[in-house]
Amino acid sequence: MREPFRIALAGLGNVGGGVAQILLTRGAELSQRAGRKLELVAVCARDRKKRRRADISHIPWISDPLALAATQADLIVEVIGGEGDPALGLIEAALNAKKSVVTANKALLAFQGAKLAELAEQRGVPLRFEAAAAGGIPIVKGLRQSLITYGIDAVHGVLNGTCNYILTQMEASGRSFADVLSEAQARGYAEADPELDIGGGDTAHKLALLAALAFGVPPDMSAIRIEGIRHISRADIAFAKEFNYRIKLLGIARKTPQGLDQRVQPAMVRLGTALADVDTVFNAVVAYAGAAGPFTFEGRGAGEEPTTSAVIADVVDIARGESGPAFGRPATDLKPLPVAPPEAHIARFYLRCDVRDRPGVLADIAGHLAREDVSIESMIQRGRDPGEAVAIVMVTHDCSETALVRALQAITASDKVLGPPCMIPIEG
Amino acid sequence: MREPFRIALAGLGNVGGGVAQILLTRGAELSQRAGRKLELVAVCARDRKKRRRADISHIPWISDPLALAATQADLIVEVIGGEGDPALGLIEAALNAKKSVVTANKALLAFQGAKLAELAEQRGVPLRFEAAAAGGIPIVKGLRQSLITYGIDAVHGVLNGTCNYILTQMEASGRSFADVLSEAQARGYAEADPELDIGGGDTAHKLALLAALAFGVPPDMSAIRIEGIRHISRADIAFAKEFNYRIKLLGIARKTPQGLDQRVQPAMVRLGTALADVDTVFNAVVAYAGAAGPFTFEGRGAGEEPTTSAVIADVVDIARGESGPAFGRPATDLKPLPVAPPEAHIARFYLRCDVRDRPGVLADIAGHLAREDVSIESMIQRGRDPGEAVAIVMVTHDCSETALVRALQAITASDKVLGPPCMIPIEG
Repeated sequence: MREPFRIALAGLGNVGGGVAQILLTRGAELSQRAGRKLELVAVCARDRKKRRRADISHIPWISDPLALAATQADLIVEVIGGEGDPALGLIEAALNAKKSVVTANKALLAFQGAKLAELAEQRGVPLRFEAAAAGGIPIVKGLRQSLITYGIDAVHGVLNGTCNYILTQMEASGRSFADVLSEAQARGYAEADPELDIGGGDTAHKLALLAALAFGVPPDMSAIRIEGIRHISRADIAFAKEFNYRIKLLGIARKTPQGLDQRVQPAMVRLGTALADVDTVFNAVVAYAGAAGPFTFEGRGAGEEPTTSAVIADVVDIARGESGPAFGRPATDLKPLPVAPPEAHIARFYLRCDVRDRPGVLADIAGHLAREDVSIESMIQRGRDPGEAVAIVMVTHDCSETALVRALQAITASDKVLGPPCMIPIEG
Repeated sequence: MREPFRIALAGLGNVGGGVAQILLTRGAELSQRAGRKLELVAVCARDRKKRRRADISHIPWISDPLALAATQADLIVEVIGGEGDPALGLIEAALNAKKSVVTANKALLAFQGAKLAELAEQRGVPLRFEAAAAGGIPIVKGLRQSLITYGIDAVHGVLNGTCNYILTQMEASGRSFADVLSEAQARGYAEADPELDIGGGDTAHKLALLAALAFGVPPDMSAIRIEGIRHISRADIAFAKEFNYRIKLLGIARKTPQGLDQRVQPAMVRLGTALADVDTVFNAVVAYAGAAGPFTFEGRGAGEEPTTSAVIADVVDIARGESGPAFGRPATDLKPLPVAPPEAHIARFYLRCDVRDRPGVLADIAGHLAREDVSIESMIQRGRDPGEAVAIVMVTHDCSETALVRALQAITASDKVLGPPCMIPIEG
């Protein structure tokens, strides 16, 4: 065996604690896999006095994360989190000191990934981030190293456990978004400030990384259209089922003739498919790998063990000697693609218009759609008492998103319609 | 960029042709990923005159596969197939000449994998075989490098496209095994001699490799109990559905307190799960990765493009400098585990007994089961005319396979039963 491989760990929350625990308890088998002894040589966290599951009393404690870059470590594990310092400063300092870096930090990489990948390559050390997208699912390695032969046409993912939990619970219980969110917060499945999850930002961070791996672009949050799940109603969830669909918050990156289309949005997915069936805290990713066909990956997308699993896999790969660029291609070769305009988004759409049930209202709606060349594949309208509020629900044939938005603007302006219609694309 | 990486290709069938085509048409992007130019420097196949899609007229042609080991190649791709020579001789010669090897040859590795892995490590060159199990699905890399942190408890896979196609068609059409097999042969989905597929041997080859990766054992065909799908009847497929299951040929490797349980057999899997829903030529694998939870992988399991995809991924990994042992741990550390005895197989079982509908027959069957402590969870018996043949179908509670086999032997001996009962375990 070669000389030991020295690891310093920044962050001792759930994931950091899990990483320490595994290095201390399963070090022998992992060292056998790495071909060299793995040694935890320094740890760093905010509060030294906190009780922790792993006994790290014998591991040198460093108070300042930046100081880890000056230790004897060969590799720094960054599981502090956060878009900026100290995580950013630590990773930069570590790479500059020619130390390898493994990070679970999706937010930071979504904004700084290209820059950090370039720095890592300049310094000749690997930067790895399997845990930053879809938790324990090995989709980062899958896109970086496995599904490379025919190119990728599209990646679709259910990437946020909180949203998936909320949508699953809304369907199961028939309760409203607000009710289920409160319950999820009480049970620890949603943060006190849930915006990053339910607003789609967290999914976008992960999507930016998957798109970079799949398409050779730098991760670019500004290229992603982001829509959250706050506006999804019980009615939409129930109607989706009648059309044989389920609503999931999807991250989608796909090549179009007009450029790269990157979107985070609630979408209808057909019941019985992997993306529709993925429940609660699981994630699923479908990669359309050209002539090799679609590949589906499913597993736990967050939490201590799945994230620890991904971090450790990266550590062992690097200890064994794996190198190569962070995004699979040299960072200097990552080139932005044009952003596909909304017109490039041709899909079938689900539409719900809440209207007053009066003569002519359907003719009105149908007329506005027809003027934009949007044709209707199927429709549900349940009668109530004349004059009452009623939902008109439709599924369109393939149409351009822009044309449909124009039609809905005209429909919204009508006094027969009770609010802005809801439109949700059908994506599989 | 470093010096070019030279590749020699043995075998120019569908997969070999695909590999040549990709190296010739997508070499630039793959070279960028590898960090060095990929060059196809020699090809070898039986018939030089055969028309091929890839234009290889400018590539040096070598008639004797063994002679590839004496070329300047850095890596040999073996896609000749077959358990023995020339594939075996070529791989040994290549490794002895310190050339890396990528092979899609599951049959050969299932029998010779440990020996070849050891030879590769002695010579200090990598041996890779992503294409040998589950086609394009990156499950070999997943088990070797990603799901290593908490250990693997079990791997379940639908690994043979021919069996999956036949079972899918039997369900869809209601036709018999023999009918559907003939049709599959006519359409090219089954070989003229289908035994390797329908007898379970091909699934066992792949399972032996997955088990070696997951559990650190040498691949060992003699440790696998193998049962094919020939005895699966239309009736079983229809009854499965009534119980909310579907019959799939599964490869299963799992740890038990008494040893490693490796089986290939038709099993009932619950509708709505990934293994039940995988259709026709797709494969699916579920890896139970300890505390990190189950991970599911699905995709095309055979055919030119998926197999080529896996071969090329291995080639690029090696060109980039990846090394490390073939089965994730040093070959000398691969150690057989005790083979779990059939008693260790505790499961719920589906049972079908064809009986003459006469008084006492059910009491008879129930009595034999009770004597072996097998209790019944649910039962279907459809009345026909008294004295006619009728199927009694049951699902048991958890019971030991050995106890159930003893009960069925007693039942078979009864003159009220029309033939040996069919038993199928319920595995998820």
